[in-house]
Amino acid sequence: MKVLVLGGDGYLGWPTALHLSQVGHEVAVVDNFARRGYDFEMGVDSLVPIESLQTRAAVWRELTGKSIGVYIGDLCDADFTYRTVRDFAPDAIVHYAEQRAAPYSMVDRKHAVYTQTNNVVGNLNVLYAIAEINPDIHLVKLGTMGEYGTPNIDIEEGWLEVEHKGRKDRVLFPKRPGSFYHLSKVHDSHNIEFACRIWGLRATDLNQGVVYGQRTPETAMDDRLATRFDYDAVFGTVLNRFVIQAVLGKPLTIYGAGGQTRGFIEIRDTVRCIQLACENPASSGEFRVFNQITEFMSLRQVADTIVNASPDAVRVEHVENPRVEAENHHYKVVHTGLVELGLEPHLLSDTLIESLFEITKRYAHRVRPEAMLPTIDWRKPSSVISN
Amino acid sequence: MKVLVLGGDGYLGWPTALHLSQVGHEVAVVDNFARRGYDFEMGVDSLVPIESLQTRAAVWRELTGKSIGVYIGDLCDADFTYRTVRDFAPDAIVHYAEQRAAPYSMVDRKHAVYTQTNNVVGNLNVLYAIAEINPDIHLVKLGTMGEYGTPNIDIEEGWLEVEHKGRKDRVLFPKRPGSFYHLSKVHDSHNIEFACRIWGLRATDLNQGVVYGQRTPETAMDDRLATRFDYDAVFGTVLNRFVIQAVLGKPLTIYGAGGQTRGFIEIRDTVRCIQLACENPASSGEFRVFNQITEFMSLRQVADTIVNASPDAVRVEHVENPRVEAENHHYKVVHTGLVELGLEPHLLSDTLIESLFEITKRYAHRVRPEAMLPTIDWRKPSSVISN
Repeated sequence: MKVLVLGGDGYLGWPTALHLSQVGHEVAVVDNFARRGYDFEMGVDSLVPIESLQTRAAVWRELTGKSIGVYIGDLCDADFTYRTVRDFAPDAIVHYAEQRAAPYSMVDRKHAVYTQTNNVVGNLNVLYAIAEINPDIHLVKLGTMGEYGTPNIDIEEGWLEVEHKGRKDRVLFPKRPGSFYHLSKVHDSHNIEFACRIWGLRATDLNQGVVYGQRTPETAMDDRLATRFDYDAVFGTVLNRFVIQAVLGKPLTIYGAGGQTRGFIEIRDTVRCIQLACENPASSGEFRVFNQITEFMSLRQVADTIVNASPDAVRVEHVENPRVEAENHHYKVVHTGLVELGLEPHLLSDTLIESLFEITKRYAHRVRPEAMLPTIDWRKPSSVISN
Repeated sequence: MKVLVLGGDGYLGWPTALHLSQVGHEVAVVDNFARRGYDFEMGVDSLVPIESLQTRAAVWRELTGKSIGVYIGDLCDADFTYRTVRDFAPDAIVHYAEQRAAPYSMVDRKHAVYTQTNNVVGNLNVLYAIAEINPDIHLVKLGTMGEYGTPNIDIEEGWLEVEHKGRKDRVLFPKRPGSFYHLSKVHDSHNIEFACRIWGLRATDLNQGVVYGQRTPETAMDDRLATRFDYDAVFGTVLNRFVIQAVLGKPLTIYGAGGQTRGFIEIRDTVRCIQLACENPASSGEFRVFNQITEFMSLRQVADTIVNASPDAVRVEHVENPRVEAENHHYKVVHTGLVELGLEPHLLSDTLIESLFEITKRYAHRVRPEAMLPTIDWRKPSSVISN
């Protein structure tokens, strides 16, 4: 298959591109390096050094003989998007190319507007490019479990069978997300469902949980193939951040009570899920949704896991929660769709954490500790990014 | 009360501003004349001639001694939005200022992106202006019944009590809208609910049905206070368009089978609903939703009503449906919230239609008949606006 990976220079986009290439697909990536730009704005960098996209692609070719095409540009530029889709003529488009940090979207009005415009317009351009160039292209879109929020009912995979006043329907699962970023993905999901309905497009919306881990078999082949590893309070996700706090001898900072429960997935499972979605496309006109998680845990449970895995003594500290979210709530999620396609989950209880400690120790000198403190307050319409 | 009417030069914004002024509120309007611009693009004009906004405000002052403030600018320009909200210091903001035609949003990619960007960004700017300047300002936002689509269950007012696998929750009513325009309002609703949740804003989302009629007691005071009356296939809503077709001796064109059922409301009730919402604000932190309709009818029933009311013989013609929509479906809508606040509906069976015939006859020479033919096809990603 020919697969175009949008956002292919990012934390997950790059390992996904490598994995798809490794298993025999013809791959090209698209990126505008927005993610690298956010680092400048925040004065941080990936904990693990990463090479330029061009170098990454050259190293991959050198090591494996397989080439990954590179398209540099912005999906909000429709001419570029159409030209790229025409030129590469993919069977599937994997769409990671969105601003993906909740705190970044909550900095202030400009960041909220940027996040929603960038994500919604980029995605609309991709939908139109598919509809106009080849409606048979399968869109594999990265959504987020955060689209659902924390309802008091079990979370189904995108759709809900409801019975109300004696009548029944299958409706889109009601969404109540927790940031302007998460909202942007809700907007995307609604737009995609509509495009499937009116133009007969085929799409898979992958509502992914919190991803952890930094290595896949492919990125591990050479340091120059490494992917990002973010530890800061804006882009660093909770489990990775806890590991880094543990290695630095700092307390693991839990926001609020810590009963917040989230779905998690390991990076090796993410790339495998994308492969499974691509190789088993949605039908024409189908808006298919999978919940891309392998387990769910509360923040307290995640912290306990890190404490237990750490060779050194580690303290847990509860800090004031900068977010507006339920800290004790029901959370039960159906996530059988990808398992039915063949996913064999790596769980957190497996061996992965040790490798995260290793990586972190190797690069601990690169951490700027102030960047780990949350400075973006959900309750205020305007915050500053960092110290 | 001080009420700022965004989109106060439009079909409903202007009569709303007059009505609020008439009942004793201090009113200012905001507009960027985008709606007048669409007319140039489409080569059409309001059937009834309308004056400039500045003239309208001057005439109102001349006749009643009441003044309506005028702010000219674009809500997507945040500086303008903040400056206006600071300067006028409203108690309530009535937000009509969005691209409001489904067919216009379905012309092509550019029109879809324009509609979603304009509506979502303008609304985000309003939310942030309220949050930063005075979170106590009550936002009265115009949504649309089209946000819901046509589910096989009864439509509640914005929220739904669900029971699922033995657990219960009150969730946002699931949305499945029928155009990129309707989607933009779904995006707005999600953004507003979130702003209420995190910042404690107070908002009323009015999911309005198809509006018909052209006169209110205030606009009827002087020809120079008239509001728009659109007959074209892009901005003309179905009932008004049928009246014009009847007067011109043309067949009433029903899209498809005509079983499509929609909620309707008369223009005098619209302005009254806005008054009721403003005078009975939502609580701090409350995202309140009303379904702003007074009755529901199928397109066939609407056509029959016009046929019966027409003094001349009128034919009904079924044309191919340019939209993707169910043509026979369940439709039952709860709309008690506004009645509980005091709305006394004018129903279509009342005397209004005769006045619509009168108005139409007076200005029939201004019609460009080609503009009444639908040329925008939902099934194609790109259409032309008109002949």
